[in-house]
Amino acid sequence: MTTYDDVEVSVLGLGAMGSALAAALLKAGHPTTVWNRSAGKAGDLVGQGAVSVDTAGEAVRASRLVIACLLDHASVHEVLDPLAAELTGRVLVNLTTTSPAQARELAAWAADAGVEYLDGGIMAVPAMIGQPGSSILYSGSAVAFEQYKPLFDQWGASSYHGTDAGLASLYDLALLAGMYVMFAGFVHGAAMVAPAGMTAGEFAAMAAPWLTAMTGAFQEIATVVDGGDYTVAGQQSLEFSDLGDIVAASSDQGISTEVVDMVQRLIRRQIDAGHGTDGFARIVESIRQPG
Amino acid sequence: MTTYDDVEVSVLGLGAMGSALAAALLKAGHPTTVWNRSAGKAGDLVGQGAVSVDTAGEAVRASRLVIACLLDHASVHEVLDPLAAELTGRVLVNLTTTSPAQARELAAWAADAGVEYLDGGIMAVPAMIGQPGSSILYSGSAVAFEQYKPLFDQWGASSYHGTDAGLASLYDLALLAGMYVMFAGFVHGAAMVAPAGMTAGEFAAMAAPWLTAMTGAFQEIATVVDGGDYTVAGQQSLEFSDLGDIVAASSDQGISTEVVDMVQRLIRRQIDAGHGTDGFARIVESIRQPG
Ligand SMILES: NC(=O)c1ccc[n+]([C@@H]2O[C@H](COP(=O)([O-])OP(=O)(O)OC[C@H]3O[C@@H](n4cnc5c(N)ncnc54)[C@H](OP(=O)(O)O)[C@@H]3O)[C@@H](O)[C@H]2O)c1
Ligand SMILES: NC(=O)c1ccc[n+]([C@@H]2O[C@H](COP(=O)([O-])OP(=O)(O)OC[C@H]3O[C@@H](n4cnc5c(N)ncnc54)[C@H](OP(=O)(O)O)[C@@H]3O)[C@@H](O)[C@H]2O)c1
Repeated sequence: MTTYDDVEVSVLGLGAMGSALAAALLKAGHPTTVWNRSAGKAGDLVGQGAVSVDTAGEAVRASRLVIACLLDHASVHEVLDPLAAELTGRVLVNLTTTSPAQARELAAWAADAGVEYLDGGIMAVPAMIGQPGSSILYSGSAVAFEQYKPLFDQWGASSYHGTDAGLASLYDLALLAGMYVMFAGFVHGAAMVAPAGMTAGEFAAMAAPWLTAMTGAFQEIATVVDGGDYTVAGQQSLEFSDLGDIVAASSDQGISTEVVDMVQRLIRRQIDAGHGTDGFARIVESIRQPG
Repeated sequence: MTTYDDVEVSVLGLGAMGSALAAALLKAGHPTTVWNRSAGKAGDLVGQGAVSVDTAGEAVRASRLVIACLLDHASVHEVLDPLAAELTGRVLVNLTTTSPAQARELAAWAADAGVEYLDGGIMAVPAMIGQPGSSILYSGSAVAFEQYKPLFDQWGASSYHGTDAGLASLYDLALLAGMYVMFAGFVHGAAMVAPAGMTAGEFAAMAAPWLTAMTGAFQEIATVVDGGDYTVAGQQSLEFSDLGDIVAASSDQGISTEVVDMVQRLIRRQIDAGHGTDGFARIVESIRQPG
């Protein structure tokens, strides 16, 4: 009788992320074969039960399920192009970060080679793999996702976003955009308070719970965006949201205002177009229409 | 014997926020006197035990502790200028949103009148007052903060930030800057995924836990900013952070790239100055030095 953790898996790429992925699989009891371009990266994993092989071909032949976590799109082609025939009939899960267009190109390449292709976007750093808060977005082969979801769940919450292999990457980039923009806002705030003697650490201790609480407003904003009616009662208006005070206070502190100017421009374009009493969610119209 | 909830308090201004503040005080058992410029706003509060008076002067005379929550700086002067003599010897807590400069001006006005002045910045919406997640920043009179902190805690977590009355407002604006910038990043992400068929609501369901988890990075960024050494090992480099993929994917989706261009500019200025292998936290240098 085959129990679930008998599923054999091969991992190509033992950088920071590939190693974390392989370690989580070993912990869950999967027979795991690992390969890395440069030697010397498999030691710890072998200690945890992995079989280390010298060529990517051996790794591909060892398991029906092949995970790639390499540097970028080019390195995936460099490793897998010579192995197309050996991948035929297998399942390739590519967790290497790529653009949506690159993911679609790899899906087409895999289809030509008779390979089930699933693309993944990892929303975690290596230390989070297998821990609460880690999640991975998938798109591409629905069959592959259904079959291996319990294995993927060893890494973090797994969600499937459709047969278009580019979507996991698109959603990944959209979430990363949110993260980098949030980080810029946090660093701007820290720069505002620094001349008054507050350390960035003290500001972080206030900003982390505050911004966490404020993520509660995303659904309200989203409801308005999806509904398309920016005049619904109960919304904070664009005029009320005007960042004039924040821009002035930033300037008074002697720092660049470009971070908050960005938001102010999105707001002002809608006010200037006569929508000042509409809700803040209307800034999506400034973003939808490139200037 | 005087128990704590015997402290008498007057609230000037019964807009959405002033009403929420007064309701929380009544719930905690404080004898509460309320006043609003226009009649008809005190009904519910009187039902909860408030004493409603017709003039701001009566409200000031009713309690040693006077809370103002009016529209803006000008309205505070309009209401309180004629009452300077009656405020002498009392404690004025101004929770009206003002700029740091306006808070300092009001503190000087209060000092002239012999009034203990405390300025507050409310980090909550009215529905959050008295609930978890609500917090209020204070600065100005340390004596007033110490004496009335238990009462302030009825509204949310209270923190004191020094005798400079402008600091609560500065920190308030810095946290609001972080919030508005985060909202812009969220709305940008929602606009990126919309052409692929994902609703803003579906994106919000992914983005809220993701960005909450990513606030965990604030302390790491802050440690580097406070330490001033952007070369410390273990940091994500500026080159790795380059948003080229995100900008390109945004552009491919047909939306404005200005939200992510802002972050990309902060990063590129540091890379172009030769710091590409330094950590992401170095973007603070782009913000510190106005272009
Ligand atoms: N680390 C994170 O926080 C994180 C988060 C989400 C997603 N990701 C993504 O996960 C992927 C791996 O990231 P990582 O952090 O593990 O990176 P890393 O530590 O720099 O490791 C890169 C891996 O790619 C291999 N590689 C590079 N070029 C190659 C080539 N031409 N042929 C064969 N192998 C090659 C390296 O092998 P050598 O040892 O031989 O150089 C190494 O195993 C990236 O796409 C990254 O964007 C990472
Ligand atoms: N609501 C929030 O989410 C929130 C969050 C943080 C901070 N705040 C701050 O809290 C303060 C009050 O906000 P709110 O939401 O309660 O606003 P609001 O509902 O619009 O109420 C404004 C209040 O100010 C009074 N007022 C306006 N001009 C006046 C004048 N010249 N003289 C006397 N009274 C005057 C109004 O009296 P009438 O009824 O006679 O017009 C009303 O009581 C603002 O500074 C706001 O920035 C609000």
